[in-house]
Amino acid sequence: MPHHDGAPVRLAVSTVIFALRPDHTGLPVLWTPLVRRTVEPHLGLWALPGGWLPPNEELEAAAARTLRATTGLAPNYLEQLYTFGEVDRSPDARVVSVVYWALVQSDEAAQATAGPNVRWVPADTMPGLAFDHNRIVEYALWRLRTKVEYAELAHALLGATFTLAELREVYEVVLQRRLDPANFRRTMIASGRLRETGEHVSGAPHRPPKLYRYETAASTAQTREPFMKERPAS
Amino acid sequence: MPHHDGAPVRLAVSTVIFALRPDHTGLPVLWTPLVRRTVEPHLGLWALPGGWLPPNEELEAAAARTLRATTGLAPNYLEQLYTFGEVDRSPDARVVSVVYWALVQSDEAAQATAGPNVRWVPADTMPGLAFDHNRIVEYALWRLRTKVEYAELAHALLGATFTLAELREVYEVVLQRRLDPANFRRTMIASGRLRETGEHVSGAPHRPPKLYRYETAASTAQTREPFMKERPAS
Repeated sequence: MPHHDGAPVRLAVSTVIFALRPDHTGLPVLWTPLVRRTVEPHLGLWALPGGWLPPNEELEAAAARTLRATTGLAPNYLEQLYTFGEVDRSPDARVVSVVYWALVQSDEAAQATAGPNVRWVPADTMPGLAFDHNRIVEYALWRLRTKVEYAELAHALLGATFTLAELREVYEVVLQRRLDPANFRRTMIASGRLRETGEHVSGAPHRPPKLYRYETAASTAQTREPFMKERPAS
Repeated sequence: MPHHDGAPVRLAVSTVIFALRPDHTGLPVLWTPLVRRTVEPHLGLWALPGGWLPPNEELEAAAARTLRATTGLAPNYLEQLYTFGEVDRSPDARVVSVVYWALVQSDEAAQATAGPNVRWVPADTMPGLAFDHNRIVEYALWRLRTKVEYAELAHALLGATFTLAELREVYEVVLQRRLDPANFRRTMIASGRLRETGEHVSGAPHRPPKLYRYETAASTAQTREPFMKERPAS
């Protein structure tokens, strides 16, 4: 281990991004972008986008900058996920990584940088990644799946308005099980969190589906956890 | 700012502990222990228990060690709360703090170290603390209040068994409002998360209150967020 007089622990940031994209059969699944390491350790292995924290850059800004530099992605919200700091997680130094995560809509994901050193993979079938990044992705998936009750999750993946069928699809992908359409509709309407926009899907010839948006009244927002706004107010 | 060649960011750990103890009128409120700073910066100010992260110590172990050294407390669970890393949060260096939190029962709190450099204060009436520690306590309170639906919270504050009146008291303190006893009883029984122990409070002369415990079947635990076990499995 190299000597770091006075400050022997190094600090890094990494980001896990999820987007809903079709798999090879056309069904939507969660994908995450990886970047190929171009330096040691783990040269050539795939890893989460990230880098060192410069002394004068805020944590979230560093996460956003390294993400943009490697993948071209610039999510509206980056949320702090967890800090991973096990003593032996990096082979040649003590590195503590503050990990951020975000959900992006599929059209944003489609605009990400392409190239030999960037690759999107289904989040459930990761290759062997550098460091403890497999464990980080697993943890992010676990958090995603235990948070699905919170409204902003589907909102972040779908955008401002969506049909009930699109919303059900998000739930099905995240929960990894099929949901009964009629039950889902009843539950969602009863939740009081959806508001009809008064608009319908354009271009549908016959009984076009209604478009909904999430209810974001301040009274509702205060009693539930703000999925993508968990950081403390400054 | 001092020069830290190769590793210019310093890493610290801090801990927020909450316990339910009576205030000066005898009503239970949330208290948190503070320690007086004996070094610069902010010499003499009150702060959260904590210290630097040594290169060969796990994050949680460092949080537990510094907590024990200053307050004598050794909670069963320390949970990672959030990492605070704003560029200007410390006056003479870039310091990123990984903050842990825990809930302790009042009898554990009563055994904490006493002395001129340790002080318990009601969490809602903090003095001006060192660094951004007031903001950290506010964030911990916010997380506590938005998590109150999760069963382990009251469990951690009350112990393995408790009466419905004790449980309601926890909810009232955390939510900062009075709850109707009959409604509370109905809601809790209906939640399916309480199990009668078959025992009653000992020493009560007439109709002693029933003791309950939380239902901890694996099937239930997997679908809700494990409040005090949020860290990833290793």
